[in-house]
Amino acid sequence: MRRGVRLGVDLGGTQVKMALVNERGRVLDRTEVLTTREPWGLVKSLRSAAAPWFSSALLGTGVGVAGDVDPARGVVRVSPNLGWKKVRLAALFRRAGFPGPIRMDNDATAAAWGATHLEFRGRAKNLVILTLGTGVGGGLVFDGRLYHGTTGTAGEVGHLCVEEGGDPCSCGNRGCLEAYLGGASLVRRALLAYKRRGRVVDPLNPKILAGLARKGDPVARKVWDRAANALGAALSNIVNLLNPDTILLTGGVSRGAALFLPKALRIMKQRSFLTPAQAVRVVVSERSSDLGVAGAALLVE
Amino acid sequence: MRRGVRLGVDLGGTQVKMALVNERGRVLDRTEVLTTREPWGLVKSLRSAAAPWFSSALLGTGVGVAGDVDPARGVVRVSPNLGWKKVRLAALFRRAGFPGPIRMDNDATAAAWGATHLEFRGRAKNLVILTLGTGVGGGLVFDGRLYHGTTGTAGEVGHLCVEEGGDPCSCGNRGCLEAYLGGASLVRRALLAYKRRGRVVDPLNPKILAGLARKGDPVARKVWDRAANALGAALSNIVNLLNPDTILLTGGVSRGAALFLPKALRIMKQRSFLTPAQAVRVVVSERSSDLGVAGAALLVE
Repeated sequence: MRRGVRLGVDLGGTQVKMALVNERGRVLDRTEVLTTREPWGLVKSLRSAAAPWFSSALLGTGVGVAGDVDPARGVVRVSPNLGWKKVRLAALFRRAGFPGPIRMDNDATAAAWGATHLEFRGRAKNLVILTLGTGVGGGLVFDGRLYHGTTGTAGEVGHLCVEEGGDPCSCGNRGCLEAYLGGASLVRRALLAYKRRGRVVDPLNPKILAGLARKGDPVARKVWDRAANALGAALSNIVNLLNPDTILLTGGVSRGAALFLPKALRIMKQRSFLTPAQAVRVVVSERSSDLGVAGAALLVE
Repeated sequence: MRRGVRLGVDLGGTQVKMALVNERGRVLDRTEVLTTREPWGLVKSLRSAAAPWFSSALLGTGVGVAGDVDPARGVVRVSPNLGWKKVRLAALFRRAGFPGPIRMDNDATAAAWGATHLEFRGRAKNLVILTLGTGVGGGLVFDGRLYHGTTGTAGEVGHLCVEEGGDPCSCGNRGCLEAYLGGASLVRRALLAYKRRGRVVDPLNPKILAGLARKGDPVARKVWDRAANALGAALSNIVNLLNPDTILLTGGVSRGAALFLPKALRIMKQRSFLTPAQAVRVVVSERSSDLGVAGAALLVE
């Protein structure tokens, strides 16, 4: 990676993180902007926030977007989180005067790229990242190179089917990993179970649900246990198919890993071939909040 | 790929194919040897068969082996088909005087590499191959490069779980693709069903089972139908995770594709995301028998 500073943009459904990032993925300066729905308006407000950083020394601007992104054309095909369809986002960044070449990719793919630099300093050659938030995203690095797939949509780990005909998923299918491990699904399943028992738990989010499980609440424990089964099934498929050296869990839900990861790892080891199971480390990120913005910046080579 | 001729060796459980192969994967000359179990004896008999080809013009020798192979060290870790454990096969080829550098990989991985050159002439950048024989193997090409994974064991498509807690598989797990689509599993399931109905069908193999299904035999049709469901589930996971441009089916069982591929494709399209589902072509190989030996040869760069 060429020495020098890039501008990274991590565009999520509720907020946009922006940062100056060096060639090793270190964040030198940062700012945040609330996400608004109208693309050109949003890009203009990002420019206002980032303008103090603009200089000819910047190598370029990298943007990670939650959604189906065409990296080659710089187009957001669909982003349910942002409510966007066919937005030529790279062109808007260019029009707004963001410095250097504009690169764009899916946010989880960018986070995978950030992780190889920032979290593993090049010591993860074959990496699968799982971003555990409201939904479950993913990104892939093979032989030290970011893998986008044919249309930039590779890495949808959250939509690996782990239970034939299982629970409905936001994508329209059934039995996806996200339907068990996504934050929204965890909460939905718990609320249903509490309701059946005539209990009201309000507010509820994955963090509160984790706290309840730690205190021994049986409903909460069962919900996390199902998430563990689903993750174990997905991990064993990933290990047998991709033989990675590293699987990295990031995002808010990964903070509850103690509740689901040990069992998921047992299942993974039971079901995977010995050689690839021994070769993989499964790690919870210590840099969760910086991976997306750092990886986006490092899309600029 | 450098111009010139390589020697390719495709080492299977019953026979060994050897061929002279040019840089485009074309087979210029070929021979076959029956597989014997003792490694050094086998390598010596391969040398006898290949010796007329030996010359300083050969760029090297590539070997594809059915089993768990360490490409970096040239070691066959385990090959159930050959009854081998920890065989330093590359060293034996060297000792026997095979020309040039000796390269080694899993046979299905080699076949994937062969397919990109011989079947697609470089027009398949992101390829997943499924070798449908007695078992189900697989190999991966990403961004035009062969992907081995961390320990050379990537690509075990046959052991993607497609049915949680499903039928037992030869690998010790349950519900693997191979347990539904592998030739041995297809025959086993059909024999059980016939037995329950008091029928004796002997001999039975995948080809005969395909013929029975074409004639409308309900047991045979049901067995192929379950194989279609399993393949559809595996394909949708592959499409969502890897976003390939090409999925190639090879091997004896792929000749019966008309019986299971149409339904598998419907399931794949139903369950995959739109963008990657539209970007992929699923093809039955027209060069099945040459891909392994051509790909093995092309392991020599």
